[in-house]
Amino acid sequence: MSWTIIATWRMALEGVQEGAKLLEYKGNSEDAIEKAIKMVEDFPYYKSVGYGGLPNENGEVELDAAFMDGDSLSIGAVAGIKDFKNPISIARKLSEEKVNCFLVGQGAEDYAHKNGFERMNMLTDRAIIQYKNRLKETVDKGLSPYSGHDTVGMVALDQNNSMASGTSTSGLFMKKRGRTGDSAISGSGFYVDSEIGGATATGLGEDIMKGCSSYEIVRLMKEGYTPQEAADKAVGQLNDLLIKRRKKAGDISVVCINNKGEFGVATNIEGFSFVVATDNLTPTVYVCSSKKGKTSYEVATSEWMDNYMKKRTAPLKLK
Amino acid sequence: MSWTIIATWRMALEGVQEGAKLLEYKGNSEDAIEKAIKMVEDFPYYKSVGYGGLPNENGEVELDAAFMDGDSLSIGAVAGIKDFKNPISIARKLSEEKVNCFLVGQGAEDYAHKNGFERMNMLTDRAIIQYKNRLKETVDKGLSPYSGHDTVGMVALDQNNSMASGTSTSGLFMKKRGRTGDSAISGSGFYVDSEIGGATATGLGEDIMKGCSSYEIVRLMKEGYTPQEAADKAVGQLNDLLIKRRKKAGDISVVCINNKGEFGVATNIEGFSFVVATDNLTPTVYVCSSKKGKTSYEVATSEWMDNYMKKRTAPLKLK
Repeated sequence: MSWTIIATWRMALEGVQEGAKLLEYKGNSEDAIEKAIKMVEDFPYYKSVGYGGLPNENGEVELDAAFMDGDSLSIGAVAGIKDFKNPISIARKLSEEKVNCFLVGQGAEDYAHKNGFERMNMLTDRAIIQYKNRLKETVDKGLSPYSGHDTVGMVALDQNNSMASGTSTSGLFMKKRGRTGDSAISGSGFYVDSEIGGATATGLGEDIMKGCSSYEIVRLMKEGYTPQEAADKAVGQLNDLLIKRRKKAGDISVVCINNKGEFGVATNIEGFSFVVATDNLTPTVYVCSSKKGKTSYEVATSEWMDNYMKKRTAPLKLK
Repeated sequence: MSWTIIATWRMALEGVQEGAKLLEYKGNSEDAIEKAIKMVEDFPYYKSVGYGGLPNENGEVELDAAFMDGDSLSIGAVAGIKDFKNPISIARKLSEEKVNCFLVGQGAEDYAHKNGFERMNMLTDRAIIQYKNRLKETVDKGLSPYSGHDTVGMVALDQNNSMASGTSTSGLFMKKRGRTGDSAISGSGFYVDSEIGGATATGLGEDIMKGCSSYEIVRLMKEGYTPQEAADKAVGQLNDLLIKRRKKAGDISVVCINNKGEFGVATNIEGFSFVVATDNLTPTVYVCSSKKGKTSYEVATSEWMDNYMKKRTAPLKLK
């Protein structure tokens, strides 16, 4: 039986490797998504998700996450949650509630605490250095401080044809307190229906939510488009619309799979990377290019892979 | 030149009357939406929006609101905000920011405070009585306390063919702290594109966000469906999908207009009311019925109108 798991960015690799093992041994898509995203959340050198995530302008790490079950369409999400180790697990638990499935701020923390989730100070020394350096480089010079918004988003199909999706992010670096992007927003940051397929997005949340890109991709797959066609079409449509109406489009990148396990990817930036594993393909990192609304991708070279990890783990100095 | 404003529920009538005056005298759709929703927020007897809104399970009034500009597609939203008089105005202001447009909890309050928005204790004596009675009737007897989730959602078209949409709600009565429904969620609670049309939804947010109904309606209008066809089709699709996958569908009601000012409405419940005004129609309340996936509506009788206000303003006793 076939299975597939796909995820945004190279940082998902170690998680996808674990998720793939689960799927290979007939684990379900929900467990694979949660396990895979937890691994990304737990790795301290990935600075846009979970532990080690970069803080908001007040120096607080505020996290967003969502989980969707493609069979029941149940959704759980948290936004602006602080001091909990694994937001994806809280989101999954919320997806099992009848109502009150999307909780923000203090309410999300109350729920997590009452349900026994692990408390953790998510701010690392490394993130503090990055925060202080960013202040010096931008705010102190009167420049806009915003940069970086790499959400991990995943979609999985298991051997029982059941699908799930999840996202997790610390959001825009230097965001204002309470700022939420698309990652917790159904239809924008994620959407999955086991009878069709699923999609997840990363980029500038404020722009992605103007096009409901994840819902649109799943809808296009339902109409008969291949995952690759659906992804290119949805990203192209939104990119063009934003340029027409606003003169510029923020970063938009998506990955998707249909319920046969075929995958697609699209981006309006250079250098978007993603990870995919199937019953036929060991977990592989690809790097994308976008030309005239068509996305192409190549397996990441070993040089690219080495540089990636070197850059992330390089010692940081306070400026 | 033609103009139209449409809104969910009878409670929007007084607001729509004011919004219609603005539109008639060439005011813009954004001002009409903000003014109209502020009136609903300010009226103390409407228990699901703004001042007088029912509290969460902790006895706190937590509000959600969103604003979308159909020209630029700019979106502003707040979720779980406490102690501010007019969430819709905060959402509109956020829609003018480049980033950090959707703020939740404490962060939304920080922003509102720094931007000079009026503070107000939104909890009324009447809401306290309803809260205490609800506890006695449900929680004390081991029953589920959740009931009521009537969002005011509006869409307007002005004489310059510019469109806007807004929502405001206190959310599900007795919700958990921080719970957010569809009202602040782009594509689910609202969506508007001045070149096509706009839609807004009310009902069980946890279910509406499983279908991105507002985005879907606008998309269907783009494909050529009339507003009425688009509304019926989107609500019917989601209702059927929820029943198929979950055995039951929560309340879903929508109103929409296209960029010619033609309107549509659809619901899967009995008794959904809405208000519409155009250059040809004084502000009018309609009450809906739904049969076999087709929504029909009639002008509310004077008896219905009298009963509505009597029920809302009737003295309340602590049980």
